Amino acid sequence: MLVEDIGEFDLINRLVGSIEARNQQFASALAEAGAILDLGIGDDAASWSLAGDAVATTDTMVDGVHFIADQIGWGDLGYKAIATNQSDIAAMGCMPTFALITLGLRGDLSVENLEEMYAGMADACEQSGGMIAGGDIVKSPVFFIAVGLEGMTAANGPLMRRDSAKPGDLIGVTGHLGCSGGGLRLLMDGTASESDDRAHLTSAHWRPTPRIAEGTALNSLGVRSAMDISDGLLDDLGKLCRASGVGATVQAGQVPADAPLKSAFPDDWLSLALGGGEDYELLFTAPEAIMERAVRGLDTPVSVIGNIREGWPSVEVLDEAGAPMEVTSGGWDHFARTRKATRLEFQEA
Amino acid sequence: MLVEDIGEFDLINRLVGSIEARNQQFASALAEAGAILDLGIGDDAASWSLAGDAVATTDTMVDGVHFIADQIGWGDLGYKAIATNQSDIAAMGCMPTFALITLGLRGDLSVENLEEMYAGMADACEQSGGMIAGGDIVKSPVFFIAVGLEGMTAANGPLMRRDSAKPGDLIGVTGHLGCSGGGLRLLMDGTASESDDRAHLTSAHWRPTPRIAEGTALNSLGVRSAMDISDGLLDDLGKLCRASGVGATVQAGQVPADAPLKSAFPDDWLSLALGGGEDYELLFTAPEAIMERAVRGLDTPVSVIGNIREGWPSVEVLDEAGAPMEVTSGGWDHFARTRKATRLEFQEA
Repeated sequence: MLVEDIGEFDLINRLVGSIEARNQQFASALAEAGAILDLGIGDDAASWSLAGDAVATTDTMVDGVHFIADQIGWGDLGYKAIATNQSDIAAMGCMPTFALITLGLRGDLSVENLEEMYAGMADACEQSGGMIAGGDIVKSPVFFIAVGLEGMTAANGPLMRRDSAKPGDLIGVTGHLGCSGGGLRLLMDGTASESDDRAHLTSAHWRPTPRIAEGTALNSLGVRSAMDISDGLLDDLGKLCRASGVGATVQAGQVPADAPLKSAFPDDWLSLALGGGEDYELLFTAPEAIMERAVRGLDTPVSVIGNIREGWPSVEVLDEAGAPMEVTSGGWDHFARTRKATRLEFQEA
Repeated sequence: MLVEDIGEFDLINRLVGSIEARNQQFASALAEAGAILDLGIGDDAASWSLAGDAVATTDTMVDGVHFIADQIGWGDLGYKAIATNQSDIAAMGCMPTFALITLGLRGDLSVENLEEMYAGMADACEQSGGMIAGGDIVKSPVFFIAVGLEGMTAANGPLMRRDSAKPGDLIGVTGHLGCSGGGLRLLMDGTASESDDRAHLTSAHWRPTPRIAEGTALNSLGVRSAMDISDGLLDDLGKLCRASGVGATVQAGQVPADAPLKSAFPDDWLSLALGGGEDYELLFTAPEAIMERAVRGLDTPVSVIGNIREGWPSVEVLDEAGAPMEVTSGGWDHFARTRKATRLEFQEA
């Protein structure tokens, strides 16, 4: 069945109906945490109350720019559209609450595919929190998904911000880097399904895990400076440095990459870990004492990869002998006519 | 200068910079009202605290579907993208607070035009409240603007909802209807600039006035059932009836239309007032005693146009002799292959 066969209002009813039972469970979980939905889908606006302050982010995926509709799994697409926003909430040290979903749809899209996409959105809510509380469906010659997601502070101190890194801070990252970028490369090469290791990399690309628990834990431990890694470690660290007016030194030998990435990309794994993008791990800085607590206190591995220093915003990378490495931190910019970096197409800005 | 010439990050800085002083004024006004911005544009998420509960809506405009980029004033486009969302907040009886703006941009769009669009967005905030607190810019083969807008309850009773109309309620509307639909028709005929009356109609189309003060006043007077008129009186009244499980009778002779509309469309003004769409007036229902207070209490004219009755959701229109009129309430649906109504292209869903 196609979108143009049933029209906007029936489509909304079908999509919303397909996840209604799960959405009610999510609402109950949020209510227990102090985020109470008073009015959901179907009116001019949704309404809710929060026990803490609000944080809000929005992130959009456009067909042909951030994904290719003919090549994706629809469930993965829905999952990722939510997860990228949950990751921004995690980076503030907060928990996801209520999402508004805008769909720009061509009439020839399949309703069943969109239902699968909604199931993927519910998967992301089930895994990392939050629920769909409303949205908008419009006709568009190009398919896009715009998600607005609100979160709630954990009410235990200032938010983690990009502009709060201080000289002397150590730099930490959660988990492993480069898997998503590696997975994307395998997908584009058509070699993604050749082994379990490769499936691990493509899964990192399509079903990244937002670091919600890690973000709130870091915030509770006193971390005040963080962001999520969406455009690649070096690019995002550059943004954090610019926002904070500091420089950074990264020890390449400390950058965490896992065995499947090294196995699939024996020559390129470091460049993927430094610049691959879409890792959705947390990048944060903190004084040494707090960083030690973070390394010990989180279940997820935390790697200390360098330090923040005085000086004009710049990021330098040192090899294991302490010599500066030549790297293209790039800066993924969909609009620039020429690209500094050798990043792959179809990554998110 | 084109978008592709300066890239995403410079573009954000230019657009945000172009309204920064005005945005700070808006933040001060919001803070006085109890909506305090803690962290604005530039981090993974914005953050705020509200003295009341939150309401949130989202509304999107797509080039070629809801407007034609070559034919619009860019300031009007920005104004309207915000105003349509403010109107949804007004319909709940609330005040606008913080907006997140998503722009899907082609690289060949003019930066100066986008700055003009941002100025129009600031105009809407200045007139009706709220401010831009964050957003996202992505590359897209079709230009679109998705606005997510949050509001705050006035904390004086339940929200105004679509599902709360009761048999015996009277039906009220603010202001006059049909001007926006008439203005659109003039714009498409190329006869919009022929007189002041016609300028009034096109202005109603491009710079509609969200009924913020009216919405909060109605809510304070005890009105519990309302929505804004975006798809046309009869279509939207049909939605309100379906949500509430009631029927409605409209007296055509009571439907408010102003002199410029009647003058420009001596034969069609009633059909424009009943179905033209994009009026962004408030449609509400209330028991007689509350309706009387609304008619007396608002500075903006309130017209009582009919009543809510028991029965299967349906809307009937009676002429001045009390005879049922044949009307196409339509239901504007961008996806349907056949259209029931005779509505114009390029109106919003």
